[in-house]
Amino acid sequence: MSPTEVPEHAFTCELQVRWSDQDVNEHVNNSRILTLTEEARVQATKAWTGVVPDARVVRALNVSFEHPIHYGPALIAHVWISRIGTSSFTFSHTLSQDGVRCAYIEATVVTIDPETKQSRPLSDQLRAALVPQLAAESVTGPGN
Amino acid sequence: MSPTEVPEHAFTCELQVRWSDQDVNEHVNNSRILTLTEEARVQATKAWTGVVPDARVVRALNVSFEHPIHYGPALIAHVWISRIGTSSFTFSHTLSQDGVRCAYIEATVVTIDPETKQSRPLSDQLRAALVPQLAAESVTGPGN
Amino acid sequence: MSPTEVPEHAFTCELQVRWSDQDVNEHVNNSRILTLTEEARVQATKAWTGVVPDARVVRALNVSFEHPIHYGPALIAHVWISRIGTSSFTFSHTLSQDGVRCAYIEATVVTIDPETKQSRPLSDQLRAALVPQLAAESVTGPGN
Amino acid sequence: MSPTEVPEHAFTCELQVRWSDQDVNEHVNNSRILTLTEEARVQATKAWTGVVPDARVVRALNVSFEHPIHYGPALIAHVWISRIGTSSFTFSHTLSQDGVRCAYIEATVVTIDPETKQSRPLSDQLRAALVPQLAAESVTGPGN
Repeated sequence: MSPTEVPEHAFTCELQVRWSDQDVNEHVNNSRILTLTEEARVQATKAWTGVVPDARVVRALNVSFEHPIHYGPALIAHVWISRIGTSSFTFSHTLSQDGVRCAYIEATVVTIDPETKQSRPLSDQLRAALVPQLAAESVTGPGN
Repeated sequence: MSPTEVPEHAFTCELQVRWSDQDVNEHVNNSRILTLTEEARVQATKAWTGVVPDARVVRALNVSFEHPIHYGPALIAHVWISRIGTSSFTFSHTLSQDGVRCAYIEATVVTIDPETKQSRPLSDQLRAALVPQLAAESVTGPGN
Repeated sequence: MSPTEVPEHAFTCELQVRWSDQDVNEHVNNSRILTLTEEARVQATKAWTGVVPDARVVRALNVSFEHPIHYGPALIAHVWISRIGTSSFTFSHTLSQDGVRCAYIEATVVTIDPETKQSRPLSDQLRAALVPQLAAESVTGPGN
Repeated sequence: MSPTEVPEHAFTCELQVRWSDQDVNEHVNNSRILTLTEEARVQATKAWTGVVPDARVVRALNVSFEHPIHYGPALIAHVWISRIGTSSFTFSHTLSQDGVRCAYIEATVVTIDPETKQSRPLSDQLRAALVPQLAAESVTGPGN
Protein backbone atom coordinates (compact mmCIF):
# COMPACT_ATOMS: atom_id res chain seq x y z
CA MET A 1 0.00 0.00 0.00
CA SER A 2 1.28 3.39 -0.88
CA PRO A 3 1.86 5.46 2.26
CA THR A 4 -0.52 8.10 0.93
CA GLU A 5 -3.46 5.77 0.37
CA VAL A 6 -6.20 6.24 2.96
CA PRO A 7 -6.55 3.12 5.16
CA GLU A 8 -10.07 1.85 5.67
CA HIS A 9 -10.04 2.57 9.40
CA ALA A 10 -8.95 6.23 9.01
CA PHE A 11 -10.72 8.87 11.08
CA THR A 12 -13.07 10.89 8.85
CA CYS A 13 -14.68 14.27 9.44
CA GLU A 14 -16.16 17.15 7.49
CA LEU A 15 -14.49 20.54 7.89
CA GLN A 16 -16.41 23.79 7.42
CA VAL A 17 -14.56 25.99 4.94
CA ARG A 18 -15.16 29.69 5.61
CA TRP A 19 -15.56 32.39 3.01
CA SER A 20 -12.61 34.11 4.70
CA ASP A 21 -10.36 31.08 4.11
CA GLN A 22 -10.09 32.15 0.49
CA ASP A 23 -7.23 34.40 -0.58
CA VAL A 24 -7.17 36.85 -3.49
CA ASN A 25 -6.76 33.89 -5.85
CA GLU A 26 -10.29 32.76 -4.87
CA HIS A 27 -9.23 29.41 -3.45
CA VAL A 28 -8.35 28.39 0.08
CA ASN A 29 -4.90 29.72 0.96
CA ASN A 30 -2.14 27.16 1.46
CA SER A 31 -1.42 28.05 5.08
CA ARG A 32 -5.16 28.01 5.84
CA ILE A 33 -5.22 24.45 4.47
CA LEU A 34 -2.80 23.63 7.28
CA THR A 35 -5.15 25.21 9.80
CA LEU A 36 -7.92 22.96 8.49
CA THR A 37 -5.54 19.98 8.66
CA GLU A 38 -4.72 20.85 12.27
CA GLU A 39 -8.43 20.91 13.09
CA ALA A 40 -8.87 17.43 11.57
CA ARG A 41 -5.89 16.19 13.58
CA VAL A 42 -7.24 17.61 16.83
CA GLN A 43 -10.63 16.01 16.21
CA ALA A 44 -8.98 12.67 15.35
CA THR A 45 -6.86 12.76 18.51
CA LYS A 46 -9.90 13.55 20.61
CA ALA A 47 -11.77 10.62 19.04
CA TRP A 48 -8.83 8.26 19.66
CA THR A 49 -7.76 9.38 23.14
CA GLY A 50 -10.81 11.10 24.58
CA VAL A 51 -9.10 14.45 25.14
CA VAL A 52 -8.00 17.51 23.20
CA PRO A 53 -4.21 17.14 22.99
CA ASP A 54 -2.24 19.72 24.94
CA ALA A 55 1.32 18.54 25.37
CA ARG A 56 2.74 18.20 21.90
CA VAL A 57 4.26 20.39 19.22
CA VAL A 58 4.56 20.01 15.46
CA ARG A 59 8.16 19.25 14.48
CA ALA A 60 7.80 18.77 10.71
CA LEU A 61 5.29 19.15 7.89
CA ASN A 62 5.36 17.66 4.39
CA VAL A 63 2.56 18.82 2.17
CA SER A 64 1.54 18.07 -1.38
CA PHE A 65 -1.15 20.38 -2.81
CA GLU A 66 -2.81 18.51 -5.65
CA HIS A 67 -5.99 20.43 -6.45
CA PRO A 68 -7.31 23.79 -5.27
CA ILE A 69 -9.82 23.77 -2.41
CA HIS A 70 -12.84 26.01 -2.92
CA TYR A 71 -15.48 27.62 -0.74
CA GLY A 72 -18.73 25.75 -1.22
CA PRO A 73 -18.29 21.99 -1.68
CA ALA A 74 -18.03 19.75 1.39
CA LEU A 75 -14.42 19.28 2.52
CA ILE A 76 -13.71 15.78 3.83
CA ALA A 77 -10.63 14.98 5.92
CA HIS A 78 -9.15 11.54 6.56
CA VAL A 79 -6.57 11.17 9.33
CA TRP A 80 -4.45 8.19 10.36
CA ILE A 81 -1.08 7.42 11.93
CA SER A 82 1.77 6.54 9.61
CA ARG A 83 4.68 6.22 12.05
CA ILE A 84 5.20 5.84 15.81
CA GLY A 85 8.65 6.58 17.23
CA THR A 86 10.02 6.95 20.74
CA SER A 87 9.04 10.54 21.45
CA SER A 88 7.34 11.47 18.19
CA PHE A 89 4.77 10.13 15.76
CA THR A 90 3.44 11.08 12.36
CA PHE A 91 -0.09 11.87 11.28
CA SER A 92 -1.10 11.43 7.66
CA HIS A 93 -4.06 13.45 6.39
CA THR A 94 -5.90 13.85 3.13
CA LEU A 95 -8.36 16.60 2.25
CA SER A 96 -10.89 15.97 -0.54
CA GLN A 97 -13.71 17.80 -2.27
CA ASP A 98 -16.24 16.20 -4.63
CA GLY A 99 -14.32 12.92 -4.44
CA VAL A 100 -11.06 14.50 -5.63
CA ARG A 101 -8.03 14.47 -3.34
CA CYS A 102 -6.84 18.07 -2.96
CA ALA A 103 -3.96 17.70 -0.50
CA TYR A 104 -1.90 15.08 1.31
CA ILE A 105 -0.20 16.19 4.52
CA GLU A 106 2.22 14.49 6.92
CA ALA A 107 2.70 16.15 10.30
CA THR A 108 5.26 14.84 12.76
CA VAL A 109 4.51 15.80 16.34
CA VAL A 110 6.66 15.50 19.42
CA THR A 111 5.25 14.90 22.87
CA ILE A 112 6.60 17.36 25.39
CA ASP A 113 6.64 17.89 29.11
CA PRO A 114 4.15 20.74 29.65
CA GLU A 115 6.37 22.28 32.33
CA THR A 116 9.84 22.12 30.77
CA LYS A 117 8.65 22.14 27.11
CA GLN A 118 11.28 19.44 26.47
CA SER A 119 10.47 16.34 24.43
CA ARG A 120 9.73 13.18 26.35
CA PRO A 121 8.84 9.60 25.37
CA LEU A 122 5.25 8.83 24.40
CA SER A 123 3.27 7.61 27.39
CA ASP A 124 2.13 3.97 27.29
CA GLN A 125 -1.44 5.26 27.27
CA LEU A 126 -0.91 7.42 24.19
CA ARG A 127 1.01 4.69 22.40
CA ALA A 128 -1.81 2.23 23.07
CA ALA A 129 -4.29 4.73 21.59
CA LEU A 130 -2.19 5.36 18.48
CA VAL A 131 -1.18 1.82 17.51
CA PRO A 132 -4.65 0.82 16.23
CA GLN A 133 -4.60 3.91 13.97
CA LEU A 134 -1.43 2.87 12.15
CA ALA A 135 -1.94 2.46 8.43
CA ALA A 136 -0.07 -0.83 8.59
CA GLU A 137 -2.76 -2.27 10.86
CA SER A 138 -5.14 -2.39 7.96
CA VAL A 139 -2.91 -4.79 6.03
CA THR A 140 -1.40 -6.79 8.93
CA GLY A 141 -2.58 -10.37 9.14
CA PRO A 142 -1.82 -14.02 8.38
CA GLY A 143 -2.08 -13.50 4.66
CA ASN A 144 0.58 -10.81 4.64
CA MET B 1 27.10 23.81 1.31
CA SER B 2 24.16 22.24 3.00
CA PRO B 3 20.93 23.10 1.21
CA THR B 4 19.57 24.65 4.38
CA GLU B 5 22.47 27.05 4.95
CA VAL B 6 21.56 30.65 4.19
CA PRO B 7 23.54 31.95 1.21
CA GLU B 8 25.16 35.34 1.61
CA HIS B 9 23.03 36.96 -1.06
CA ALA B 10 19.70 35.79 0.43
CA PHE B 11 16.86 38.30 0.65
CA THR B 12 16.39 39.42 4.26
CA CYS B 13 13.44 41.11 5.92
CA GLU B 14 11.92 41.58 9.35
CA LEU B 15 8.41 40.24 9.88
CA GLN B 16 6.05 41.73 12.46
CA VAL B 17 4.70 38.97 14.69
CA ARG B 18 1.24 39.81 16.03
CA TRP B 19 -0.07 39.00 19.49
CA SER B 20 -2.85 37.10 17.70
CA ASP B 21 -0.34 34.83 15.94
CA GLN B 22 0.08 32.97 19.22
CA ASP B 23 -2.06 29.94 19.93
CA VAL B 24 -3.10 28.59 23.32
CA ASN B 25 0.40 27.18 23.76
CA GLU B 26 1.71 30.79 23.86
CA HIS B 27 3.94 30.46 20.83
CA VAL B 28 3.27 31.25 17.18
CA ASN B 29 1.05 28.54 15.70
CA ASN B 30 2.63 26.29 13.06
CA SER B 31 0.25 27.26 10.26
CA ARG B 32 0.71 30.93 11.12
CA ILE B 33 4.45 30.38 10.67
CA LEU B 34 3.60 29.48 7.08
CA THR B 35 1.63 32.70 6.70
CA LEU B 36 4.71 34.60 7.86
CA THR B 37 6.85 32.55 5.45
CA GLU B 38 4.47 33.41 2.62
CA GLU B 39 4.81 37.09 3.46
CA ALA B 40 8.63 36.84 3.31
CA ARG B 41 8.37 35.05 -0.06
CA VAL B 42 6.04 37.70 -1.50
CA GLN B 43 8.40 40.47 -0.36
CA ALA B 44 11.40 38.62 -1.81
CA THR B 45 9.66 38.12 -5.13
CA LYS B 46 8.70 41.76 -5.27
CA ALA B 47 12.31 42.76 -4.56
CA TRP B 48 13.61 40.41 -7.27
CA THR B 49 11.02 40.99 -9.99
CA GLY B 50 9.49 44.37 -9.17
CA VAL B 51 5.95 43.06 -8.82
CA VAL B 52 3.75 41.20 -6.36
CA PRO B 53 3.43 37.70 -7.87
CA ASP B 54 -0.03 36.79 -9.07
CA ALA B 55 0.16 33.80 -11.36
CA ARG B 56 1.56 31.00 -9.29
CA VAL B 57 0.39 28.44 -6.75
CA VAL B 58 2.16 26.51 -4.03
CA ARG B 59 2.52 22.85 -5.00
CA ALA B 60 4.53 21.50 -2.04
CA LEU B 61 5.80 22.49 1.39
CA ASN B 62 8.51 20.89 3.51
CA VAL B 63 8.91 22.40 6.92
CA SER B 64 11.18 21.76 9.85
CA PHE B 65 10.20 23.53 13.09
CA GLU B 66 13.33 23.77 15.20
CA HIS B 67 12.55 26.26 17.96
CA PRO B 68 9.33 27.95 19.03
CA ILE B 69 8.69 31.48 17.72
CA HIS B 70 7.48 33.94 20.33
CA TYR B 71 5.69 37.27 20.35
CA GLY B 72 8.17 39.98 21.20
CA PRO B 73 11.65 39.40 19.73
CA ALA B 74 12.37 40.54 16.15
CA LEU B 75 11.65 37.80 13.61
CA ILE B 76 14.13 37.75 10.73
CA ALA B 77 13.41 35.92 7.45
CA HIS B 78 15.95 34.89 4.83
CA VAL B 79 14.69 33.80 1.41
CA TRP B 80 16.52 32.34 -1.56
CA ILE B 81 15.94 30.04 -4.51
CA SER B 82 17.10 26.45 -4.18
CA ARG B 83 15.84 24.93 -7.45
CA ILE B 84 14.60 26.12 -10.84
CA GLY B 85 12.71 23.65 -13.03
CA THR B 86 10.71 23.99 -16.22
CA SER B 87 7.40 25.19 -14.82
CA SER B 88 8.19 25.25 -11.10
CA PHE B 89 10.86 26.47 -8.72
CA THR B 90 11.62 26.16 -5.04
CA PHE B 91 12.01 28.84 -2.42
CA SER B 92 14.05 28.16 0.71
CA HIS B 93 13.32 30.24 3.79
CA THR B 94 14.63 30.45 7.31
CA LEU B 95 13.00 32.26 10.23
CA SER B 96 15.17 33.29 13.19
CA GLN B 97 14.77 35.06 16.53
CA ASP B 98 17.62 36.27 18.71
CA GLY B 99 20.10 34.65 16.34
CA VAL B 100 18.53 31.19 16.70
CA ARG B 101 17.05 29.48 13.64
CA CYS B 102 13.45 28.57 14.45
CA ALA B 103 12.25 27.09 11.16
CA TYR B 104 13.45 26.04 7.73
CA ILE B 105 10.85 25.94 4.97
CA GLU B 106 10.96 24.84 1.33
CA ALA B 107 8.04 25.90 -0.85
CA THR B 108 7.73 24.70 -4.43
CA VAL B 109 5.59 26.95 -6.58
CA VAL B 110 4.22 26.38 -10.05
CA THR B 111 3.65 29.17 -12.52
CA ILE B 112 0.18 29.07 -13.98
CA ASP B 113 -1.77 30.66 -16.75
CA PRO B 114 -4.06 33.14 -14.95
CA GLU B 115 -6.93 32.32 -17.32
CA THR B 116 -6.83 28.54 -17.51
CA LYS B 117 -5.17 27.97 -14.08
CA GLN B 118 -3.01 25.33 -15.81
CA SER B 119 0.74 25.18 -15.20
CA ARG B 120 2.96 26.70 -17.85
CA PRO B 121 6.72 27.08 -18.29
CA LEU B 122 8.49 29.87 -16.44
CA SER B 123 8.78 32.97 -18.59
CA ASP B 124 12.30 33.96 -19.65
CA GLN B 125 11.85 37.16 -17.66
CA LEU B 126 11.03 35.31 -14.44
CA ARG B 127 13.82 32.80 -14.97
CA ALA B 128 16.30 35.63 -15.47
CA ALA B 129 15.13 37.21 -12.19
CA LEU B 130 15.39 33.94 -10.25
CA VAL B 131 18.77 32.62 -11.44
CA PRO B 132 20.83 35.16 -9.46
CA GLN B 133 18.95 34.10 -6.32
CA LEU B 134 19.99 30.45 -6.57
CA ALA B 135 21.95 29.27 -3.56
CA ALA B 136 24.44 27.55 -5.85
CA GLU B 137 25.38 30.90 -7.39
CA SER B 138 27.11 31.85 -4.17
CA VAL B 139 29.51 28.93 -4.39
CA THR B 140 29.88 28.66 -8.18
CA GLY B 141 33.40 29.30 -9.40
CA PRO B 142 36.54 27.78 -10.91
CA GLY B 143 37.13 25.62 -7.88
CA ASN B 144 33.75 23.89 -8.14
CA MET C 1 -39.47 43.86 20.58
CA SER C 2 -35.98 44.75 21.54
CA PRO C 3 -33.78 45.14 18.46
CA THR C 4 -31.43 42.48 19.80
CA GLU C 5 -34.08 39.81 20.28
CA VAL C 6 -33.90 37.05 17.68
CA PRO C 7 -37.00 37.08 15.47
CA GLU C 8 -38.64 33.71 14.87
CA HIS C 9 -37.87 33.69 11.17
CA ALA C 10 -34.14 34.37 11.61
CA PHE C 11 -31.69 32.34 9.55
CA THR C 12 -29.97 29.77 11.77
CA CYS C 13 -26.79 27.79 11.20
CA GLU C 14 -24.12 25.97 13.16
CA LEU C 15 -20.56 27.26 12.82
CA GLN C 16 -17.56 25.00 13.31
CA VAL C 17 -15.19 26.57 15.83
CA ARG C 18 -11.57 25.56 15.20
CA TRP C 19 -8.96 24.82 17.84
CA SER C 20 -6.91 27.58 16.19
CA ASP C 21 -9.67 30.15 16.77
CA GLN C 22 -8.62 30.27 20.41
CA ASP C 23 -6.07 32.83 21.53
CA VAL C 24 -3.68 32.60 24.46
CA ASN C 25 -6.60 33.32 26.79
CA GLU C 26 -8.11 29.95 25.75
CA HIS C 27 -11.28 31.40 24.32
CA VAL C 28 -12.17 32.42 20.78
CA ASN C 29 -10.44 35.69 19.96
CA ASN C 30 -12.69 38.74 19.47
CA SER C 31 -11.68 39.37 15.86
CA ARG C 32 -12.13 35.69 15.07
CA ILE C 33 -15.68 36.02 16.39
CA LEU C 34 -16.19 38.53 13.61
CA THR C 35 -14.85 36.04 11.07
CA LEU C 36 -17.41 33.54 12.34
CA THR C 37 -20.09 36.22 12.16
CA GLU C 38 -19.10 36.98 8.57
CA GLU C 39 -19.44 33.31 7.71
CA ALA C 40 -22.96 33.23 9.18
CA ARG C 41 -23.85 36.36 7.18
CA VAL C 42 -22.54 34.89 3.93
CA GLN C 43 -24.52 31.70 4.50
CA ALA C 44 -27.66 33.69 5.34
CA THR C 45 -27.30 35.82 2.22
CA LYS C 46 -26.83 32.74 0.08
CA ALA C 47 -29.96 31.19 1.61
CA TRP C 48 -31.97 34.37 1.00
CA THR C 49 -30.70 35.34 -2.46
CA GLY C 50 -29.31 32.12 -3.90
CA VAL C 51 -25.78 33.47 -4.42
CA VAL C 52 -22.65 34.22 -2.45
CA PRO C 53 -22.59 38.01 -2.19
CA ASP C 54 -19.79 39.71 -4.09
CA ALA C 55 -20.57 43.38 -4.49
CA ARG C 56 -20.79 44.79 -1.02
CA VAL C 57 -18.48 46.01 1.72
CA VAL C 58 -18.87 46.33 5.46
CA ARG C 59 -19.22 49.97 6.49
CA ALA C 60 -19.77 49.63 10.25
CA LEU C 61 -19.73 47.09 13.05
CA ASN C 62 -21.23 47.28 16.53
CA VAL C 63 -20.42 44.36 18.73
CA SER C 64 -21.33 43.39 22.25
CA PHE C 65 -19.35 40.44 23.67
CA GLU C 66 -21.43 38.97 26.48
CA HIS C 67 -19.88 35.58 27.26
CA PRO C 68 -16.68 33.91 26.11
CA ILE C 69 -16.95 31.44 23.21
CA HIS C 70 -15.07 28.19 23.72
CA TYR C 71 -13.74 25.41 21.53
CA GLY C 72 -15.97 22.39 21.95
CA PRO C 73 -19.66 23.23 22.37
CA ALA C 74 -21.81 23.77 19.27
CA LEU C 75 -21.86 27.41 18.17
CA ILE C 76 -25.24 28.53 16.84
CA ALA C 77 -25.66 31.70 14.76
CA HIS C 78 -28.90 33.56 14.10
CA VAL C 79 -28.97 36.20 11.37
CA TRP C 80 -31.65 38.66 10.35
CA ILE C 81 -32.04 42.10 8.81
CA SER C 82 -32.62 45.01 11.14
CA ARG C 83 -32.56 47.96 8.72
CA ILE C 84 -32.85 48.55 4.97
CA GLY C 85 -31.74 51.90 3.59
CA THR C 86 -31.15 53.26 0.10
CA SER C 87 -27.70 51.87 -0.59
CA SER C 88 -27.00 50.07 2.68
CA PHE C 89 -28.64 47.64 5.06
CA THR C 90 -27.89 46.18 8.47
CA PHE C 91 -27.51 42.58 9.51
CA SER C 92 -28.12 41.59 13.12
CA HIS C 93 -26.46 38.40 14.38
CA THR C 94 -26.31 36.50 17.61
CA LEU C 95 -23.88 33.73 18.50
CA SER C 96 -24.81 31.26 21.24
CA GLN C 97 -23.32 28.22 22.97
CA ASP C 98 -25.21 25.89 25.27
CA GLY C 99 -28.25 28.16 25.05
CA VAL C 100 -26.34 31.22 26.31
CA ARG C 101 -26.00 34.24 24.06
CA CYS C 102 -22.29 35.04 23.74
CA ALA C 103 -22.30 37.96 21.30
CA TYR C 104 -24.65 40.33 19.49
CA ILE C 105 -23.32 41.92 16.30
CA GLU C 106 -24.71 44.53 13.92
CA ALA C 107 -22.98 44.87 10.57
CA THR C 108 -23.95 47.58 8.12
CA VAL C 109 -23.04 46.76 4.55
CA VAL C 110 -23.06 48.96 1.49
CA THR C 111 -23.77 47.66 -1.98
CA ILE C 112 -21.14 48.75 -4.45
CA ASP C 113 -20.58 48.78 -8.17
CA PRO C 114 -18.02 45.99 -8.70
CA GLU C 115 -16.20 48.05 -11.34
CA THR C 116 -16.00 51.49 -9.74
CA LYS C 117 -16.16 50.30 -6.10
CA GLN C 118 -18.56 53.20 -5.47
CA SER C 119 -21.74 52.69 -3.45
CA ARG C 120 -24.95 52.32 -5.41
CA PRO C 121 -28.60 51.83 -4.49
CA LEU C 122 -29.78 48.34 -3.59
CA SER C 123 -31.18 46.54 -6.61
CA ASP C 124 -34.90 45.82 -6.56
CA GLN C 125 -34.04 42.12 -6.58
CA LEU C 126 -31.87 42.38 -3.47
CA ARG C 127 -34.38 44.58 -1.67
CA ALA C 128 -37.12 42.05 -2.42
CA ALA C 129 -34.96 39.30 -0.94
CA LEU C 130 -34.13 41.29 2.19
CA VAL C 131 -37.54 42.67 3.13
CA PRO C 132 -38.93 39.33 4.37
CA GLN C 133 -35.89 39.01 6.66
CA LEU C 134 -36.58 42.27 8.50
CA ALA C 135 -37.12 41.76 12.20
CA ALA C 136 -40.09 44.08 12.04
CA GLU C 137 -41.83 41.79 9.58
CA SER C 138 -42.37 39.33 12.36
CA VAL C 139 -44.44 41.81 14.31
CA THR C 140 -46.11 43.63 11.42
CA GLY C 141 -49.84 43.28 11.36
CA PRO C 142 -53.18 45.13 11.49
CA GLY C 143 -52.40 46.47 14.92
CA ASN C 144 -49.25 48.25 13.76
CA MET D 1 -12.73 68.16 19.88
CA SER D 2 -14.59 65.43 18.13
CA PRO D 3 -14.11 62.13 19.94
CA THR D 4 -12.71 60.63 16.76
CA GLU D 5 -10.00 63.24 16.25
CA VAL D 6 -6.53 61.93 17.05
CA PRO D 7 -5.05 63.72 20.07
CA GLU D 8 -1.49 64.95 19.72
CA HIS D 9 -0.14 62.61 22.38
CA ALA D 10 -1.67 59.46 20.84
CA PHE D 11 0.51 56.36 20.63
CA THR D 12 1.60 55.80 17.01
CA CYS D 13 2.97 52.70 15.32
CA GLU D 14 3.31 51.18 11.88
CA LEU D 15 1.59 47.83 11.31
CA GLN D 16 2.85 45.37 8.71
CA VAL D 17 -0.02 44.35 6.44
CA ARG D 18 0.43 40.84 5.07
CA TRP D 19 -0.48 39.66 1.58
CA SER D 20 -2.68 37.08 3.32
CA ASP D 21 -4.68 39.82 5.09
CA GLN D 22 -6.44 40.47 1.80
CA ASP D 23 -9.68 38.69 1.02
CA VAL D 24 -11.11 37.84 -2.39
CA ASN D 25 -12.11 41.48 -2.79
CA GLU D 26 -8.39 42.39 -2.85
CA HIS D 27 -8.49 44.59 0.20
CA VAL D 28 -7.82 43.82 3.85
CA ASN D 29 -10.77 41.90 5.29
CA ASN D 30 -12.87 43.68 7.92
CA SER D 31 -12.21 41.19 10.70
CA ARG D 32 -8.50 41.24 9.90
CA ILE D 33 -8.63 45.02 10.37
CA LEU D 34 -9.68 44.24 13.94
CA THR D 35 -6.70 41.92 14.34
CA LEU D 36 -4.45 44.78 13.23
CA THR D 37 -6.27 47.10 15.63
CA GLU D 38 -5.71 44.62 18.45
CA GLU D 39 -2.00 44.55 17.66
CA ALA D 40 -1.84 48.36 17.84
CA ARG D 41 -3.68 48.27 21.19
CA VAL D 42 -1.32 45.65 22.63
CA GLN D 43 1.70 47.69 21.53
CA ALA D 44 0.19 50.87 23.00
CA THR D 45 -0.54 49.16 26.31
CA LYS D 46 2.98 47.80 26.46
CA ALA D 47 4.36 51.28 25.80
CA TRP D 48 2.14 52.82 28.51
CA THR D 49 2.40 50.15 31.20
CA GLY D 50 5.59 48.25 30.39
CA VAL D 51 3.90 44.87 30.00
CA VAL D 52 1.84 42.92 27.49
CA PRO D 53 -1.68 42.98 28.94
CA ASP D 54 -2.99 39.61 30.09
CA ALA D 55 -5.98 40.12 32.34
CA ARG D 56 -8.59 41.85 30.29
CA VAL D 57 -11.22 41.01 27.71
CA VAL D 58 -12.91 43.02 24.99
CA ARG D 59 -16.51 43.77 25.93
CA ALA D 60 -17.60 45.96 22.98
CA LEU D 61 -16.43 47.15 19.58
CA ASN D 62 -17.69 50.04 17.47
CA VAL D 63 -16.11 50.30 14.08
CA SER D 64 -16.46 52.68 11.17
CA PHE D 65 -14.77 51.53 7.95
CA GLU D 66 -14.15 54.64 5.88
CA HIS D 67 -11.74 53.61 3.14
CA PRO D 68 -10.41 50.21 2.04
CA ILE D 69 -6.99 49.18 3.37
CA HIS D 70 -4.64 47.73 0.79
CA TYR D 71 -1.54 45.58 0.78
CA GLY D 72 1.44 47.77 -0.01
CA PRO D 73 1.23 51.26 1.50
CA ALA D 74 2.40 51.83 5.09
CA LEU D 75 -0.43 51.37 7.59
CA ILE D 76 -0.24 53.81 10.49
CA ALA D 77 -2.16 53.26 13.74
CA HIS D 78 -2.94 55.86 16.39
CA VAL D 79 -4.20 54.70 19.77
CA TRP D 80 -5.48 56.65 22.76
CA ILE D 81 -7.87 56.32 25.68
CA SER D 82 -11.28 57.88 25.32
CA ARG D 83 -12.98 56.76 28.55
CA ILE D 84 -11.97 55.35 31.94
CA GLY D 85 -14.65 53.75 34.09
CA THR D 86 -14.59 51.66 37.26
CA SER D 87 -13.76 48.26 35.84
CA SER D 88 -13.57 49.07 32.13
CA PHE D 89 -12.03 51.60 29.79
CA THR D 90 -12.21 52.45 26.11
CA PHE D 91 -9.46 52.57 23.52
CA SER D 92 -9.89 54.71 20.42
CA HIS D 93 -7.86 53.78 17.34
CA THR D 94 -7.47 55.09 13.83
CA LEU D 95 -5.83 53.30 10.93
CA SER D 96 -4.52 55.35 8.01
CA GLN D 97 -2.78 54.80 4.68
CA ASP D 98 -1.24 57.54 2.54
CA GLY D 99 -2.60 60.15 4.94
CA VAL D 100 -6.20 58.99 4.52
CA ARG D 101 -8.09 57.67 7.53
CA CYS D 102 -9.39 54.20 6.68
CA ALA D 103 -11.03 53.13 9.93
CA TYR D 104 -11.98 54.43 13.36
CA ILE D 105 -12.40 51.82 16.10
CA GLU D 106 -13.52 52.00 19.73
CA ALA D 107 -12.83 48.97 21.88
CA THR D 108 -14.10 48.75 25.43
CA VAL D 109 -12.13 46.35 27.59
CA VAL D 110 -12.87 45.02 31.02
CA THR D 111 -10.19 44.11 33.51
CA ILE D 112 -10.70 40.65 34.95
CA ASP D 113 -9.37 38.51 37.71
CA PRO D 114 -7.16 35.98 35.89
CA GLU D 115 -8.33 33.17 38.21
CA THR D 116 -12.08 33.71 38.35
CA LYS D 117 -12.43 35.46 34.96
CA GLN D 118 -14.81 37.90 36.70
CA SER D 119 -14.52 41.64 36.12
CA ARG D 120 -12.80 43.64 38.82
CA PRO D 121 -11.99 47.33 39.32
CA LEU D 122 -8.99 48.80 37.51
CA SER D 123 -5.90 48.71 39.68
CA ASP D 124 -4.54 52.08 40.81
CA GLN D 125 -1.39 51.29 38.84
CA LEU D 126 -3.29 50.74 35.59
CA ARG D 127 -5.48 53.79 36.13
CA ALA D 128 -2.39 55.91 36.69
CA ALA D 129 -0.92 54.62 33.42
CA LEU D 130 -4.11 55.28 31.46
CA VAL D 131 -5.06 58.75 32.67
CA PRO D 132 -2.29 60.56 30.75
CA GLN D 133 -3.50 58.83 27.55
CA LEU D 134 -7.02 60.27 27.79
CA ALA D 135 -7.94 62.36 24.79
CA ALA D 136 -9.24 65.05 27.10
CA GLU D 137 -5.76 65.56 28.53
CA SER D 138 -4.73 67.18 25.29
CA VAL D 139 -7.33 69.92 25.67
CA THR D 140 -7.24 70.32 29.44
CA GLY D 141 -6.17 73.76 30.53
CA PRO D 142 -7.11 76.82 32.55
CA GLY D 143 -10.33 77.26 30.62
CA ASN D 144 -11.62 73.82 31.57
